[in-house]
Amino acid sequence: MIDARVADLLSRMTLTEKVGQLNQRLCGWRAWRRTGKGFAATEELLAEARRFGGIGAVYGLQRADAWSGQGWETGVRADEAAELTATIQQTIVAESRLGIPALFVEEVPHGHQALDGTVLPVALAVASTWDPDLYEEACRAVAAEVQARGVHVALVSTLDVLRDPRWGRAEETFGEDPWLASAFTTAAVRGMQHNGKVAAVLKHAAGQGATVGGRNWAATELGWRELAEIHLPPVRAAVEAGAAGLMAAYSEVEGLPVAANRRLLTEIIRHQMGFPGLVMADGTALDRLLRMTGDPVAAAALALRSGVDLSLWDEVYPHLGEAIERGLASEEDLDQAVARVLSLKFRLGLFDSPRASLGTENLRRESAALSGRIAASAITLLHDREGILPLRAHRIAVLGPHADTLEHALGDYTAPQPADLGPTIAQALNAMSTVPGSDIATADGSGIPEAVALARAADVAVVCLGGSSARDSTTTFDTNGAARSGSNTSQMTAGEGVDLARLELGRGQRALLSQVAATGTPVVAVVVQGRPHVLGEVLDLAGACLSTFYPGPALGETVADVLLGRREPTGRLPVSLPREAASLPVHYNHRDHDWAGYLDAPPGPLLPFGAGLGTGELILSAPRLSHDHVRLADLRAGRTITCDVSVRNDGSTASSTVVQLYLRRITASIWPRTRELRGFRRVTVPAGGATTVVFPIGAAELADAEQHLEAGAVELQTGVSSADLTSVRLHIQSD
Amino acid sequence: MIDARVADLLSRMTLTEKVGQLNQRLCGWRAWRRTGKGFAATEELLAEARRFGGIGAVYGLQRADAWSGQGWETGVRADEAAELTATIQQTIVAESRLGIPALFVEEVPHGHQALDGTVLPVALAVASTWDPDLYEEACRAVAAEVQARGVHVALVSTLDVLRDPRWGRAEETFGEDPWLASAFTTAAVRGMQHNGKVAAVLKHAAGQGATVGGRNWAATELGWRELAEIHLPPVRAAVEAGAAGLMAAYSEVEGLPVAANRRLLTEIIRHQMGFPGLVMADGTALDRLLRMTGDPVAAAALALRSGVDLSLWDEVYPHLGEAIERGLASEEDLDQAVARVLSLKFRLGLFDSPRASLGTENLRRESAALSGRIAASAITLLHDREGILPLRAHRIAVLGPHADTLEHALGDYTAPQPADLGPTIAQALNAMSTVPGSDIATADGSGIPEAVALARAADVAVVCLGGSSARDSTTTFDTNGAARSGSNTSQMTAGEGVDLARLELGRGQRALLSQVAATGTPVVAVVVQGRPHVLGEVLDLAGACLSTFYPGPALGETVADVLLGRREPTGRLPVSLPREAASLPVHYNHRDHDWAGYLDAPPGPLLPFGAGLGTGELILSAPRLSHDHVRLADLRAGRTITCDVSVRNDGSTASSTVVQLYLRRITASIWPRTRELRGFRRVTVPAGGATTVVFPIGAAELADAEQHLEAGAVELQTGVSSADLTSVRLHIQSD
Repeated sequence: MIDARVADLLSRMTLTEKVGQLNQRLCGWRAWRRTGKGFAATEELLAEARRFGGIGAVYGLQRADAWSGQGWETGVRADEAAELTATIQQTIVAESRLGIPALFVEEVPHGHQALDGTVLPVALAVASTWDPDLYEEACRAVAAEVQARGVHVALVSTLDVLRDPRWGRAEETFGEDPWLASAFTTAAVRGMQHNGKVAAVLKHAAGQGATVGGRNWAATELGWRELAEIHLPPVRAAVEAGAAGLMAAYSEVEGLPVAANRRLLTEIIRHQMGFPGLVMADGTALDRLLRMTGDPVAAAALALRSGVDLSLWDEVYPHLGEAIERGLASEEDLDQAVARVLSLKFRLGLFDSPRASLGTENLRRESAALSGRIAASAITLLHDREGILPLRAHRIAVLGPHADTLEHALGDYTAPQPADLGPTIAQALNAMSTVPGSDIATADGSGIPEAVALARAADVAVVCLGGSSARDSTTTFDTNGAARSGSNTSQMTAGEGVDLARLELGRGQRALLSQVAATGTPVVAVVVQGRPHVLGEVLDLAGACLSTFYPGPALGETVADVLLGRREPTGRLPVSLPREAASLPVHYNHRDHDWAGYLDAPPGPLLPFGAGLGTGELILSAPRLSHDHVRLADLRAGRTITCDVSVRNDGSTASSTVVQLYLRRITASIWPRTRELRGFRRVTVPAGGATTVVFPIGAAELADAEQHLEAGAVELQTGVSSADLTSVRLHIQSD
Repeated sequence: MIDARVADLLSRMTLTEKVGQLNQRLCGWRAWRRTGKGFAATEELLAEARRFGGIGAVYGLQRADAWSGQGWETGVRADEAAELTATIQQTIVAESRLGIPALFVEEVPHGHQALDGTVLPVALAVASTWDPDLYEEACRAVAAEVQARGVHVALVSTLDVLRDPRWGRAEETFGEDPWLASAFTTAAVRGMQHNGKVAAVLKHAAGQGATVGGRNWAATELGWRELAEIHLPPVRAAVEAGAAGLMAAYSEVEGLPVAANRRLLTEIIRHQMGFPGLVMADGTALDRLLRMTGDPVAAAALALRSGVDLSLWDEVYPHLGEAIERGLASEEDLDQAVARVLSLKFRLGLFDSPRASLGTENLRRESAALSGRIAASAITLLHDREGILPLRAHRIAVLGPHADTLEHALGDYTAPQPADLGPTIAQALNAMSTVPGSDIATADGSGIPEAVALARAADVAVVCLGGSSARDSTTTFDTNGAARSGSNTSQMTAGEGVDLARLELGRGQRALLSQVAATGTPVVAVVVQGRPHVLGEVLDLAGACLSTFYPGPALGETVADVLLGRREPTGRLPVSLPREAASLPVHYNHRDHDWAGYLDAPPGPLLPFGAGLGTGELILSAPRLSHDHVRLADLRAGRTITCDVSVRNDGSTASSTVVQLYLRRITASIWPRTRELRGFRRVTVPAGGATTVVFPIGAAELADAEQHLEAGAVELQTGVSSADLTSVRLHIQSD
């Protein structure tokens, strides 16, 4: 039905009109202006619509942040959004001979980056919950919010797998593991697309979490196998979940940027994985192809032939018509891309009568609650060596640059927030006293003397350290909106464009912690971060340490709940914590080699993937298999066996943990990794009770990244982190 | 002729005899014992020869070092070697029904690792000369030496390209650049094989210089393109130069260890490159395949099918017969491998009458002189900020752990040396005083007070710092002879098995330098190293700084010559010096991205690839092309144009430099690297004179790693380092 409508429309379009459908050149905030009583299209939008007789998509009509320059005084409020989008859509349709509306695309990496948009915790925090169901629920709520604001396409960060924590965009990933990232990717797609009215375009396919040196938009040196085993599983999960679109990564695979990589986009993702959806370029990524082609026409042809359907901000895709006319790409390729764009428009109902405008207030209340639940669930207890928790002291000094602000806990891609966003840690703890003590990014520790004095006067010092991806009015930007590292990036130590070599907390913060600890007052460190930092010193100096990746507005309440014992800490690390940058990389799932460590640094991480403490007394059994052997043919036919683990609670309060299942290949035709996550389950066990976790073991768990099964021995390993496991052996028998 | 003899022999061999020809299981030093008047085979050798009715090859009959346990009291002297090898060969031939002799294989990574063997500077020092002709001459001399000692096969380190300086085997590489490494690989093959009597087996193919984290025998994550562009050019150079053999690297490509990687060994190296020679496994590498197969028979089949001809120390290749009988590999594959072994034996003359025994004393004198010339040529002046050089002071204090010993300047894979090896730096400088001051590896700086006192009393302090790959009696070893890092590795900070995370000089050394510098006495730092260390602090504290990668016995003389102004420093860095490990990697030839640096570290190295100062006043012209365009068809037909650079000497003494030519691709179908070395020439210009360097520019210079030429614009860039260049543009026109 849709196919027929698409074919019909396509048959009536001119070349220019087709090219227009593949263009998403505008920055949406420049597409409208306020009139006395509402909104109108700008000349820029009109010119663009007239140039091509329509527009494929408009990015960021509602985006608000330092780069777009949209804030509370100028930007689009939730209650204005429906009107804005309707007005702009009418203008575009009116300029289109065939009445084709535009897709409205918005940044929704962790909530909608717009005024009044709910801020979710960043992906790295989401992954710390090990609870994809909760995330799916949050994505449903956010989708309802953006739908009500007239948005059609949400750009969501799910696909990058973090292999080098120096990368500034670490926070936008679900961590280092492909299985975990896949589970959350599936949840994102299901949640965002739950009613078919919002399309998710997932960022970014593929490999960008492994660029050389963790450098933003640098090359990768990855081979296809590493790509397949680590970076493509979330892409496959997205495809299987029915994601409407994927955004092509800036980075290269095998010397070709993804936007010019036909093997990856077309042969692997479209043909092998069967992806029918839209491939969108990243911002200005097609302009960068000029480094290869020297010429925008050739660049346009290269991207189209490779499999890019829709541009973003570049001056390349306007040249598509010329590329077709010169014979550098075929009209068939063009038509396919246009068909994908049109098909999405039909499926989302853009050609149907306009949606009723909805209020978002109730929706936002629900999203905000879910954001808080994720934040609460993500807090990870790294240690409580001195048994400080729960805090029973009355005189609490809350110190550090995260102590009394939420500004730095929101992550990159966040819109300006209201003043009453929520209580800070100091407020939520009813702190006796609070002071930042130091800058986040710099060596400035001018507030340390005051902090030390406050610590001395307190029974306990909660020292709130970490990073920041907060852009502000002093931040400068690259042409694609990334922060320009090396220039003044205000307090940013993370975020797009802000890569960090040493992974250390700022010098001022380190001085603050050590001087506060030297007072002898018990110290709890709370680390609020956008990437895994080097925390050895923090763990040494603090009697207890919590970590939370940017949790969003609920920082204060959720940290207070854990510190005061109102909630058990339930987060688990989705990424290994490195000892120091010099010994990178430290993934748990490297290929299995007997290597003793550096002369000056032991092998392995400071804290392993999957780690995190609860406060209860849970005891796991060894894993038990329903069968100790299984036949290849049965696996191929869909048979699963089970691996059970019992969890007993010997304590006097209910307690939660995340039971993790890993596969260790004993024999394999490819050099095996140490282990590979193959299942996980959050369980809560009542005091004195017990429960059993049952993991299915079938083709999905036993196959390799290319879905091959092979005969041989494997171990199933279960436990509460990638480094705390017991094993049972399974024989896979050949036919 | 040889083919016919091989075929004839092969047709008469049993399966067991064939398997025997592919085995190199023994450690040679356990194959012989001393009798009253000479040598005899041990039971171990006899058992091995009888087990298979012959032996393919015997490794290390003459190896002497801490691992083999052979030293001056027990080991094989030069004047005994011919007798030993003759005796052992007679035994083996006698045990072979068909009278097939064994190949005698020795470590010759930088000179023969045997008593009385000449020690050449390590490969990283050799590369610092940018003078392959000199190295070829040295290899000829070393080949003559080993030939006279009855050696047939020399294992030479040339193929690993250093992409991560944390790797302990950095010293065994020609640095980070494929073109430079290729030039020296060609020189090694030509030199070692100059008379056809010694075969070079080059270590290692391929990719081992890029293992994850610089970890010894870890995986690489390299794709085929990165492998082709960076790691395979030296292999291709080796094949084109006629190398007899290649050793398969421990590391993996695309998840398969090279010894199990048919695509690399057979499809790429044999079929595409046309390599007809022998592929040898690395030590115990085939045993490691059990991590995949779980079974030595399957491992043997896997390696044979992949393209490994000859084993090393493993317990896998003895199972080849079983593998054939079980049908896991074909007898055709087996016969091919045996034919390669036999063919080499015929070509080297093993079936001919025994060679006359030669004395090696004159040969050694020649090799030693060449070793000294390389050492002299390799010394690299990093800066002379304070104009300290040449030293004119009479009162020179020579301090530091390299000050008065040659022990740590010899590199890994070095045999015990005579007591009168040569003058130390202190001796060669006629130092007024000398003291080590600190340990090399540890924080021990107990000698610092004395060093400071000596510096105070001197006009200048020469502080001799660096690393060490010196094994001693306290070193412990892995099964393959690598040092076991993490256990007591004595003073080792480098060498096989000793990977270093932070790349810093030992803490004691750093304290020594800073305290000596604080005396106010002018300081010259001499850094003797096996890998590029982080030297920012050294460059800051020292008024002048020389670097030399382990230069061998001539350390003292050659450093003194430069310090005293008797010789201009002529070395150039074959590898970028990193600022710190946290900002790795820092190759000059990464893919070209506009990246501004880490928030906490600038982009780029401390000192760039190709850098190094002379003391003269040479002025380079801009490059001039003979033609500003060239047609693809002409290039394919072998046409070359030229790129000229004039070098003028405005000074009052003759001076040398290395003129370097780089290619920068302006357009390309693969994302271009910043630049790629495409030529270099050492020139010496008399005072007031001038000379012109003429670089040919043809298909070899312009093609990509897969030998493809494409139309488009390129720049030719010339200068005296990879960061000090001027450009001219060339258009390659399509046909």
